[in-house]
Amino acid sequence: MTTNNRSWTVSAQQDVNYRVETTFDILDPANPTLIDGEYGSRRLIVTDTTVDALYGEKIRAYAEANLTEHRILVLPHGESNKRWIAVETVLEAIESFKLDRRREPVIAIGGGVLTDIVGFACSIYRRNTPFVRVPTTLIGIVDASVGVKTGVNFQAGKNKIGTYFAASRSLLDTSFLASLGARHVSNGLAEILKIALIKDRDLFSLLEEHGASARAGRFQQHSDAEQQIIDRAIAGMLEELEPNLWEQNLERLVDYGHSFSPTVEMKALPELLHGEAVCLDMALTTAISVHRGLVSAEQARRVFTVMGKLGLPVSHPAMTVGNLLEGLADTTRHRNGLQRLPLPVGIGAAVFVNDLTPADIAAALEILASAAQFEGAAV
Amino acid sequence: MTTNNRSWTVSAQQDVNYRVETTFDILDPANPTLIDGEYGSRRLIVTDTTVDALYGEKIRAYAEANLTEHRILVLPHGESNKRWIAVETVLEAIESFKLDRRREPVIAIGGGVLTDIVGFACSIYRRNTPFVRVPTTLIGIVDASVGVKTGVNFQAGKNKIGTYFAASRSLLDTSFLASLGARHVSNGLAEILKIALIKDRDLFSLLEEHGASARAGRFQQHSDAEQQIIDRAIAGMLEELEPNLWEQNLERLVDYGHSFSPTVEMKALPELLHGEAVCLDMALTTAISVHRGLVSAEQARRVFTVMGKLGLPVSHPAMTVGNLLEGLADTTRHRNGLQRLPLPVGIGAAVFVNDLTPADIAAALEILASAAQFEGAAV
Repeated sequence: MTTNNRSWTVSAQQDVNYRVETTFDILDPANPTLIDGEYGSRRLIVTDTTVDALYGEKIRAYAEANLTEHRILVLPHGESNKRWIAVETVLEAIESFKLDRRREPVIAIGGGVLTDIVGFACSIYRRNTPFVRVPTTLIGIVDASVGVKTGVNFQAGKNKIGTYFAASRSLLDTSFLASLGARHVSNGLAEILKIALIKDRDLFSLLEEHGASARAGRFQQHSDAEQQIIDRAIAGMLEELEPNLWEQNLERLVDYGHSFSPTVEMKALPELLHGEAVCLDMALTTAISVHRGLVSAEQARRVFTVMGKLGLPVSHPAMTVGNLLEGLADTTRHRNGLQRLPLPVGIGAAVFVNDLTPADIAAALEILASAAQFEGAAV
Repeated sequence: MTTNNRSWTVSAQQDVNYRVETTFDILDPANPTLIDGEYGSRRLIVTDTTVDALYGEKIRAYAEANLTEHRILVLPHGESNKRWIAVETVLEAIESFKLDRRREPVIAIGGGVLTDIVGFACSIYRRNTPFVRVPTTLIGIVDASVGVKTGVNFQAGKNKIGTYFAASRSLLDTSFLASLGARHVSNGLAEILKIALIKDRDLFSLLEEHGASARAGRFQQHSDAEQQIIDRAIAGMLEELEPNLWEQNLERLVDYGHSFSPTVEMKALPELLHGEAVCLDMALTTAISVHRGLVSAEQARRVFTVMGKLGLPVSHPAMTVGNLLEGLADTTRHRNGLQRLPLPVGIGAAVFVNDLTPADIAAALEILASAAQFEGAAV
């Protein structure tokens, strides 16, 4: 603290450490991972209706075998329920379960929506209550459970309210993916493709070669390729997040695919999944890069083809010039007055631009329309 | 980041810097302090009905003279309105005013309740929106606007939900106190007395000698004693906060007066002001220290006498053994399973204990009842 003429300056540093670990069959009652190394054996477990229908029995059997006391809270599933009311429901459950502060972690088992809601509630309950994340979807495993962002939608704004708050542990178990619908596998593959396009050409090659079969088999072959696809995506994401965990630098490569998509996703809700909206954004920005000479037509063809193989869309009726400009304006406010728009450069690299015009967007939409002709692209 | 057998550990540090500065006549249109050094000249200003009635005209005149665009949001006054709905109202105003992220700070002008609400809203809107705090009450100046805690009440819990989030600047202007009711001056003096009792014997002497006249004159004499009372309270508070801003260490001297009082204050709402509840807690714990031989009868007499001079209560019908035990149980959960109860040692020092019993509380209540006889104590 420095004092000067009746003014004081406070300087402090907060250390944040968290662990992301892969595991297997986490709900096997003989597997101690879920409660390992943490305090006591009382737990509040939060999940959603979809996960409860599929794994509720296993969760209960696990809890009965391993916990002295537990309560299971089941929230309604889906992006449309990612609102404050869900956060309040979790807060009420924490309050009535009377958790010890900072010792008994809340356990969140579900997709990215569920873990974002529970993380938000835990971050504000007594300003800090630990939680453990167990993602049950591919997008949860490679994206939502890797970073520190929590939050819910507010009014028309995607994730407009939330916090930066790390789960004490994120436990990634691909055995959950066995029950995942193909569309939801694609949803996660979109975030994997994002990492490939901005920074990992080898990951792109893996997706070109093995993406379709990993999708068809829901990552249950446990092949070296499947493991590499997931591990490279997580490591690439964490490499970008770690030096910029609180987003002081608003030029974020991992924002690729997230410039126009928040508005498009909210406009099309509940029709588009998050990863689908991200892929539409990536297809658009790939086309912008073609228009600007940053990506060759041949490279774009490979990108659109992989999107198709992964079951992801490259066009949608909500991708109108009006919606896209509205999205860009909101994103520009979100990025402190500059577009800071990541554009792909070839495959596996990116650059930031601040001078995108409505004409660029119109030209890109035309390129995308003709991309419908590319072999294999699902448009 | 360290990687090991398909697990990753992320380590990061967040730097937090904020400034607390004294100023004078901040609403004088010729005084640039309020918008000095910050981006642009659009501002959302949030205040409450009480402050608006007293200073609304001045705030509007200031805004018209100094801002190109502004909106003034007026929230209902008082602790009973410190609920999520108020936070939501602020979020809606931020959203519709379309603030640039991280550049245009929200300005909060009001008491501790108002600045806690606005701070909470700003901390979660896009996960981080800057705000400037202008406390209009004594408790705001010496307490709420000095630290980084934001929050609102939830169910029966005082400040049960919130965040750690620093205002970019806190601008302390004692000229607001001219319009403050005597009871609200006392409210702030309770937090000043807290700092005196746990760590600053000289501040206690200043309160003994000048507290009553500072209270009567609402700190408008601008004497050296008045200035010292405020500066020592702020400096003492910041010394305790800075090394423990996120409360990793749950043994906090500044929690003195805040062990039983959250429950008592909520039970008696809206009858007791925050500082009054804090003083009841300090009177009780002083009596506990007498019972345990940590404070002499003579020292306790001086403490109770100062409480009386400052217009603060030492007893209240809500101080029942039942409420106090309930409060201690909740505080113990809040402090991670241990009481970590600060008890005064003489005047100007304290110790933490974990072994308080119902018998200690009953004995202390008896000592307090007889304290009614001490000269000058307002019981």
